[in-house]
Amino acid sequence: MIKHLEHEIELEPAFYDIDPMEVVWHGHYVKFLERARGALFGRLNFGYLQMKESGYAFPIIELFIRYAQPLRLGQRVRVLARIVEWESRLRVNYEIRDAASGRRLTRAHTVQVAVDMRSGNMCYLCPKILWERIGVPPP
Amino acid sequence: MIKHLEHEIELEPAFYDIDPMEVVWHGHYVKFLERARGALFGRLNFGYLQMKESGYAFPIIELFIRYAQPLRLGQRVRVLARIVEWESRLRVNYEIRDAASGRRLTRAHTVQVAVDMRSGNMCYLCPKILWERIGVPPP
Amino acid sequence: MIKHLEHEIELEPAFYDIDPMEVVWHGHYVKFLERARGALFGRLNFGYLQMKESGYAFPIIELFIRYAQPLRLGQRVRVLARIVEWESRLRVNYEIRDAASGRRLTRAHTVQVAVDMRSGNMCYLCPKILWERIGVPPP
Amino acid sequence: MIKHLEHEIELEPAFYDIDPMEVVWHGHYVKFLERARGALFGRLNFGYLQMKESGYAFPIIELFIRYAQPLRLGQRVRVLARIVEWESRLRVNYEIRDAASGRRLTRAHTVQVAVDMRSGNMCYLCPKILWERIGVPPP
Repeated sequence: MIKHLEHEIELEPAFYDIDPMEVVWHGHYVKFLERARGALFGRLNFGYLQMKESGYAFPIIELFIRYAQPLRLGQRVRVLARIVEWESRLRVNYEIRDAASGRRLTRAHTVQVAVDMRSGNMCYLCPKILWERIGVPPP
Repeated sequence: MIKHLEHEIELEPAFYDIDPMEVVWHGHYVKFLERARGALFGRLNFGYLQMKESGYAFPIIELFIRYAQPLRLGQRVRVLARIVEWESRLRVNYEIRDAASGRRLTRAHTVQVAVDMRSGNMCYLCPKILWERIGVPPP
Repeated sequence: MIKHLEHEIELEPAFYDIDPMEVVWHGHYVKFLERARGALFGRLNFGYLQMKESGYAFPIIELFIRYAQPLRLGQRVRVLARIVEWESRLRVNYEIRDAASGRRLTRAHTVQVAVDMRSGNMCYLCPKILWERIGVPPP
Repeated sequence: MIKHLEHEIELEPAFYDIDPMEVVWHGHYVKFLERARGALFGRLNFGYLQMKESGYAFPIIELFIRYAQPLRLGQRVRVLARIVEWESRLRVNYEIRDAASGRRLTRAHTVQVAVDMRSGNMCYLCPKILWERIGVPPP
């Protein structure tokens, strides 16, 4: 595992994330994934603003979440994001774990493609700038 | 009351609006106000996209909500938005009522000011285009 | 296709659903799916409140969304939800289409399992009450 | 100023908080206030779960926000929450400041009342348990 291609954040669900079943509503997990991915790409100097400057957008084209255990109010969790594909598409895998026990609560992934913002066209290969920021050639 | 300066929408809270107390979380009301205001301005041909074309933005500078009765899952409500000031600032008043009984549940208001998007400066008077869309001179 | 096992709603993204790329942020789609599924189960007299009365919860254990085309402000869309599995788990498939052109913009599915709320245990078969509400035996 | 009656958190808006005007959508500020108030009451051992155990709920009955300067992506801010009334109602004042410059961007307040959860009745005085947790008599 190439260590700089993964990043972990710690967070705690807020009151407004909790649904009437007293667990985090399943749709709010997408925010937690976004925060972990945002922190990872921020560390690679390729956050949203830098992506925009580069002339490329990276819209999400696929989202998958497998919920194994609920998240609760007051529970600290760690969200790990890891870049696993960056050749023709950018795939990030995620794990959410209970911060205290380390128990895995959720697995997820997202897939993004590059879009050239001048032409509006989807790129069949991720642009060079992404590879440079990632710092290793595609696997 | 000038009838075209008010508009009412009907909506029902969704599951994801409900908090662990089994009522709509207070922060979600801002969405209901936005939907009513958006529908009102849409009817005046001055929705977000037309505002943008006009060269002005109208950021919210003040929000007030008075919660009298909770909103619950499965409860249909009517949200009334009414423009009450449009000279130097744009003020919209809101009422949320139970659709079945007509009982008032919430009162609110928002205040917006015009910002000239070329200069980034706040306008001391609302721009003419707003008055034209409203169709009556400021009170 | 058994017609009462599907339901379609029409909706329009709100201003607060739109991200800086001027499209609906991908995480907000989960709300649109929930509204379509909620309307479908409401029609089957098995909305959240009736589920709760039945003694079973149906947490989402899997979410998948494939984004083909972006959703934009002012675009009316139709969200179709269709129950396709209800034996050991409850699977709902979704399609989001542009209301004007009928073009498919998004495909998605969710998987839920029944949890007996007295014991907290997951059920290996969906409970009878679900089958009764659906009105046809599992396929 | 009684120091233990105020608490400050630091946060950064996420991508999903940003609207098409490239600023934080005004409705999302309610979440930032909730996080600061939640942290403050957590420190007083009177978070949501402890409130619930105490037999009282503290619904928000009034929300006011004055937006002076926009919040942007990548901008770290500090959110200060301060309890200023706790006799017949619980009032919390808030300030959001730019973390780098200290410049004040937003002022806000919320008002809550105690509701006895057994009877469902609103309390004309805040319950003793609140005063005990606050640790000083009402001003």
